[in-house]
Amino acid sequence: MTHATAMLPDLRTVDPVELTRLLCDIPSVSGDEAAIADAIEVALRSLPHLEVLRDGDAVLARTSLGRASRVVVAGHIDTVPVQGNLPTQVRTASAAEGEVLWGRGTVDMKGGVAVALHLAATVTEPAVDVTYAFYDHEEVEAELNGLGRIARHHPDWLAADFAILGEPTAGHVEGGCNGTMRLEVATAGRTAHSARAWRGHNAIHDLAPVLAALAAHESETVTVDGLDYREGLGAVGIGGGIAGNMIPDAAVVTVNYRFAPSRSADDAEAYVRTVLADALAGLDGATVTVTDVAPGARPGLDHPVAAAFVAAAVAATGAEVNPKYGWTDVARFSALGVPAVNFGPGDPNLAHADDERCPTAQITAVATALRAWLAPERAAD
Amino acid sequence: MTHATAMLPDLRTVDPVELTRLLCDIPSVSGDEAAIADAIEVALRSLPHLEVLRDGDAVLARTSLGRASRVVVAGHIDTVPVQGNLPTQVRTASAAEGEVLWGRGTVDMKGGVAVALHLAATVTEPAVDVTYAFYDHEEVEAELNGLGRIARHHPDWLAADFAILGEPTAGHVEGGCNGTMRLEVATAGRTAHSARAWRGHNAIHDLAPVLAALAAHESETVTVDGLDYREGLGAVGIGGGIAGNMIPDAAVVTVNYRFAPSRSADDAEAYVRTVLADALAGLDGATVTVTDVAPGARPGLDHPVAAAFVAAAVAATGAEVNPKYGWTDVARFSALGVPAVNFGPGDPNLAHADDERCPTAQITAVATALRAWLAPERAAD
Repeated sequence: MTHATAMLPDLRTVDPVELTRLLCDIPSVSGDEAAIADAIEVALRSLPHLEVLRDGDAVLARTSLGRASRVVVAGHIDTVPVQGNLPTQVRTASAAEGEVLWGRGTVDMKGGVAVALHLAATVTEPAVDVTYAFYDHEEVEAELNGLGRIARHHPDWLAADFAILGEPTAGHVEGGCNGTMRLEVATAGRTAHSARAWRGHNAIHDLAPVLAALAAHESETVTVDGLDYREGLGAVGIGGGIAGNMIPDAAVVTVNYRFAPSRSADDAEAYVRTVLADALAGLDGATVTVTDVAPGARPGLDHPVAAAFVAAAVAATGAEVNPKYGWTDVARFSALGVPAVNFGPGDPNLAHADDERCPTAQITAVATALRAWLAPERAAD
Repeated sequence: MTHATAMLPDLRTVDPVELTRLLCDIPSVSGDEAAIADAIEVALRSLPHLEVLRDGDAVLARTSLGRASRVVVAGHIDTVPVQGNLPTQVRTASAAEGEVLWGRGTVDMKGGVAVALHLAATVTEPAVDVTYAFYDHEEVEAELNGLGRIARHHPDWLAADFAILGEPTAGHVEGGCNGTMRLEVATAGRTAHSARAWRGHNAIHDLAPVLAALAAHESETVTVDGLDYREGLGAVGIGGGIAGNMIPDAAVVTVNYRFAPSRSADDAEAYVRTVLADALAGLDGATVTVTDVAPGARPGLDHPVAAAFVAAAVAATGAEVNPKYGWTDVARFSALGVPAVNFGPGDPNLAHADDERCPTAQITAVATALRAWLAPERAAD
């Protein structure tokens, strides 16, 4: 791929807010990350305390100080497509928001990337060894995900005791994530011309008790490692019908179950089957098929390194510690046996929005919190 | 349109079974009826007792003997696409079926057309005046229907006291037809990411009581002019869903109501709304919209001309008199104020089938029955 050359200033001299703005202004929609990866690689290779690895359009850098623990600080460098919201602007939004960086990527997630680059450059002797991971293709199909590719090509680079993903959490700590499973509940009938409906069996009508069970179901809240994970179970799609004059012999409802990280995929499937058991018992030929599953991630906040991070973050910024409901790449770390949290600047509800914007104070606060943890002596200066 | 020339033999000399075979072998898929219309027009214009009209690819012919009553004998000349089932073959099927004509159009409905052409040619002094109508585009969109076009262009040619449509009824008399109405029942919710389902309102779940009401509903049987019309009400389509990770804000079930010819379109809509009233009462923002309606046709068998026809058909062939459930062009006659029945050779369940076939004895029996009615003295010879 050919691409324009972009350069970053010396990372040791640039403020994380300004760095966020510079990163946002380098075109980096998923699939077009070469320029920003090149800029990051060049900037990191100039820092003698770091070992740097390039894999595709992912760039990793790590310290090797022989510390007792290692943490990964990670963030994706791609964005969803631009909607006329570049170049980045510094604006003063409402009194509540204060000064913001406005534009694509300010929330998801150049702020988190800028903080990580800033720490990589300026914390030369962290209290724990750190691996920084900047990766591509997070906003598109899961199989393209750069973090997944690194786990396949260079698993040793992701080995760690704890990981922090800089996804937007408005400066709070969001631990682990719920899992997600999709299932198709299919009913089976017998076709007939609708002028003689009594000769058929209507598969759409058979969905009635299935929908009733889903509508009546009250989702559980499951406490895992001290965080309360609220689950969700419901229909996300429905389809059926052959023609306007035919009794349909098939209909299907697609169900999405967001399940607490204490449940395995098998547990989750068994749970859904139990919820639907009475509805399905009366239906001939109905089937339930799992089409897609991604287990969640336990927050792992009982690990000493994680606990130290949380304590530092709360002390430095007054951050809240919450469960993460949506599935994020923390689950990739969890699958590697690495407990992980989300911690980054920006309101996640503004991610991908046309008016995406991030309070500059959040960028500074997240940088301060991470510095307080990685370089406690210097922070105490 | 250019087309191959097809010729029919002198209609006065050819048996209806053989004429059925000849008609089937003239290509006449909907939209390509010119050749068969030309052949029919030429054959009819050679008969001095008939006045002939050509309109597009429809051909009409009528006697004008000053009789007290007039009847229309009608049939469409197009077929659905051929599926390797031409040319027509004479086969001996099962013992129950006996000799059959096998091939596209033998059931729907060249047998009925052949009988009408045979009678047009051979019953030169019928007991009632007769208008024969052979029309195009019955098997496709309703707005192309040749009978509808004639009603617009030449309504006087369809004025009559009674009409017989030669659609396949296996030689029985099927009176009138049920009406058909389609309605869309739409529910309204509020989108949310399915990881935070509690922030949304699931429109698919709202369909549960609607489907339950349809599934529990027991359709009525309504007696109209002495025939029992069995109704049908149920879902023929369902849809909803935005993405696998979204709570949907809209869902819709398409309902088809087949209603007795004693109900008007307004009555039918009110009936469906009553059936769904309890289900809809609990739903905010749900709507019911009629998207399509075609009222039915009363059989009108109490009219003296119709009664005489039925008596003659029953006497000649032992025909049963039944209601028609499916919507047919008899409803077009009904809309013109002309009571109408379906009466033709061939099992309607074999219409459009790859193994479409018609017992030759049914063609003969229908011709005999109609002759007994139109020319009672000659039939008694």
